[in-house]
Amino acid sequence: MFLKIEHLGIAVRNLESANKLFAALLGTEHYKQEAVEREKVTTSFFQMGGSKIELLEASDPESPIAKFIEKRGEGIHHIAFEVEDIRATIKRLKEEGFHLLSDEPKPGADNKLIAFLHPKSTNGVLVEICQERH
Amino acid sequence: MFLKIEHLGIAVRNLESANKLFAALLGTEHYKQEAVEREKVTTSFFQMGGSKIELLEASDPESPIAKFIEKRGEGIHHIAFEVEDIRATIKRLKEEGFHLLSDEPKPGADNKLIAFLHPKSTNGVLVEICQERH
Repeated sequence: MFLKIEHLGIAVRNLESANKLFAALLGTEHYKQEAVEREKVTTSFFQMGGSKIELLEASDPESPIAKFIEKRGEGIHHIAFEVEDIRATIKRLKEEGFHLLSDEPKPGADNKLIAFLHPKSTNGVLVEICQERH
Repeated sequence: MFLKIEHLGIAVRNLESANKLFAALLGTEHYKQEAVEREKVTTSFFQMGGSKIELLEASDPESPIAKFIEKRGEGIHHIAFEVEDIRATIKRLKEEGFHLLSDEPKPGADNKLIAFLHPKSTNGVLVEICQERH
């Protein structure tokens, strides 16, 4: 079951200047910054109501974020939905015909288990589903 | 003051098939569909926690949504934040150096007053601010 928009991921070239820009926009400072080695990104998070804004800067030219920016420029990269049971949701979505990038959830930023759907099966939208790790 | 992510706008080629796809994804049906003549779009809305997903189909080849899809393909088009006082927020954001597409809020879908920030001033993200109309 999909519960809410957990966060919106935004690809940025420079995290330091983007942190300042989004603090000025949203009227709140980022509350944490975190490197995710396996995704080759550094992330920062802003709280916004019950959701978050996640800024993503590539920490390596081979990072998916570096490739995204090269191809499309800075901008919204993905939308993440919090789900009740990520394994059950992966199973349900595969049965519905969605293309999951992995059959098993993997550890993500912000103490989450995450999985991605291929944008080709979701109208060009890179969709992440995530569940808090216990 | 920014309160929450009010909705995420997604540009789609065909609203009917996209409604089915997002219903299957989110596990909930769209709760309304609405034409916005001045923007040359037809929209549909899904509730997701305290936020919404807005699908946008162009109703005219000159629609901004038609141009967006022509240039970038289907996908996430904009992020909308609910603000407490849209006129005060427009004033504050202009003072902060953001580029507003209009100085005055205009009527949008879903009984809102809305204004957009130019993506060049917000790291490539098309940002909408909106406030419920009384």
